[in-house]
Amino acid sequence: MTGQLMAAEMAEQPEVLARVRARAAADATAVRAVLPSPLAGVVFLARGSSDNAAVFGRYLAELRAGRPAGLAAPSLYTRYHASVDWHGYLVVALSQSGATPEIISTCRAVRAGGAVVLGITNEPMSPLADAVDLLLGTDAGPERAVPATKTVTAQLAVLGTVTSALRAAPGPDGTLDGLPGAVAAVLGDPGPVRRLAGQWRELDRLVVAGRGLAYAAALETALKVKETTGILAEGISTADLLHGPIAAVYAGAPVLLVDGGGPADTDLEELRALLASRQARAASLPVPPGLPEAVHVIAAVTRGQQLAYELARARHVDPDAPAHLSKVTATT
Amino acid sequence: MTGQLMAAEMAEQPEVLARVRARAAADATAVRAVLPSPLAGVVFLARGSSDNAAVFGRYLAELRAGRPAGLAAPSLYTRYHASVDWHGYLVVALSQSGATPEIISTCRAVRAGGAVVLGITNEPMSPLADAVDLLLGTDAGPERAVPATKTVTAQLAVLGTVTSALRAAPGPDGTLDGLPGAVAAVLGDPGPVRRLAGQWRELDRLVVAGRGLAYAAALETALKVKETTGILAEGISTADLLHGPIAAVYAGAPVLLVDGGGPADTDLEELRALLASRQARAASLPVPPGLPEAVHVIAAVTRGQQLAYELARARHVDPDAPAHLSKVTATT
Repeated sequence: MTGQLMAAEMAEQPEVLARVRARAAADATAVRAVLPSPLAGVVFLARGSSDNAAVFGRYLAELRAGRPAGLAAPSLYTRYHASVDWHGYLVVALSQSGATPEIISTCRAVRAGGAVVLGITNEPMSPLADAVDLLLGTDAGPERAVPATKTVTAQLAVLGTVTSALRAAPGPDGTLDGLPGAVAAVLGDPGPVRRLAGQWRELDRLVVAGRGLAYAAALETALKVKETTGILAEGISTADLLHGPIAAVYAGAPVLLVDGGGPADTDLEELRALLASRQARAASLPVPPGLPEAVHVIAAVTRGQQLAYELARARHVDPDAPAHLSKVTATT
Repeated sequence: MTGQLMAAEMAEQPEVLARVRARAAADATAVRAVLPSPLAGVVFLARGSSDNAAVFGRYLAELRAGRPAGLAAPSLYTRYHASVDWHGYLVVALSQSGATPEIISTCRAVRAGGAVVLGITNEPMSPLADAVDLLLGTDAGPERAVPATKTVTAQLAVLGTVTSALRAAPGPDGTLDGLPGAVAAVLGDPGPVRRLAGQWRELDRLVVAGRGLAYAAALETALKVKETTGILAEGISTADLLHGPIAAVYAGAPVLLVDGGGPADTDLEELRALLASRQARAASLPVPPGLPEAVHVIAAVTRGQQLAYELARARHVDPDAPAHLSKVTATT
């Protein structure tokens, strides 16, 4: 049977996330102990499959720290050897393997420039440990399927903890309490995703739209669908899809709407009405109600994994090692 | 004859860019007069068609200012009403029309939070003027074709000026002297692009790869090709295409390699060799040699416009108002 690895790793998520939640208070204390003061800004450093987690962290950090946040451009350090003053900055480096040479050398460069560097990895014994001021593990266990699942949601949960440490009072929105249960509820209810995968099995393109925190979930869902099925899925900001000229390029493509359970969902309602008026194919997937926004969005990421998995199976592709992926991974 | 507007507006670029160059010293002085001191960071604020210019500015600013740079997330202000301390930051807002409500309200929010805000627009009498500390015009004249061309390269050139003002000594790399001539040389030599457009007229997907400053040109070329032709063109970082698992999704697609004439081109050589070993279709387009990197990249953007234009004509689509775009622009 195909897809066993991906299914098993997805199923581990409630347990992995419960471990991250149990460590949250201790992790937040450790982050507070290294924070620069005054804080000039927060920058997330990632590449490839960790890029979308960085987007999630970037939104949360600016909201919670009350200082500007952004994403690093590693080539400025690995290719341009830029000389930059990083004093006052917290840099959060994300690397599942902890061994991406580009991430390690950029950590060293920004740290030499004065940044405090925090690493988040699934491999605490990796070279990343020596390049950072503080290392937090995702503690998700080995991941063997090609599409990353449990390591991604674990990264997002650790980012929830890290960003909650950036403000004086964590407040109710900083909690991960409902997360393991919400993800378990999504995993235990594959019906809506199976029905959608059946309807969409012949797709060659797909637009995934979200805004605010949910933009990160839209990007991650598009990546997962792309990786497991080869469908040209693109994550787009709801705002660009509503108001940008580029919207029309995707006029024929079905749209998956990802809500965040937060204040940016008004754009999604507007988009839903617009798509309905055009008889466009659109769908959204349920997440348990009443969750804090960050938790809601992590549960939506699990929904997206489920869609990628079910689409692959409906198309008779092995989600553990999609042919179009494994071949190339071997040659690069 | 179709495409007259786009062709005419592209042809105006050397003249438009000569005007921007003539103003460069005065503009740089005006920027220096408003710069926060000490500078905590530089953030670019844009939406839709100005997004790629923001990426260009972001790389140049970090290199030249020697302080971290990034891109703003407007929804944090328009939807989340985030309370953020922007003291010490220069925010550079890009809006061709100067009237995008989201950009205007985000300018007001970050300025209220302590940022110095600089606006770059093609409409100096627009509402943007009242929301910024300093307004610089692109002075490109009215643009009527749907695909933006002369306003984009003018934006890039103004960003060249703005970022050159961020360092003590502008140095030879900060100059726009060769720009009007380089763009005129590209426009006067459409042969390579016409040949490629003839070979690629049946494409349904295209990957455009670049790194460092040239990443902005890759993103802009992909957007322009998408807008004018409906081809699913995607701009990707050369590093992701070389090392990311996602590379394989695009294994069947032809790749346009965009060089920047700078230190990040080593990745492009590696990618070219890899694509050749796989018999993948790959192409690159010539830009006059010997230019400073920022000027080289702006000339590469004009090459990308030329490719979009010629591909549209080879596919019998009107590049001035592509059917798939005009229809939707009317309904949104």
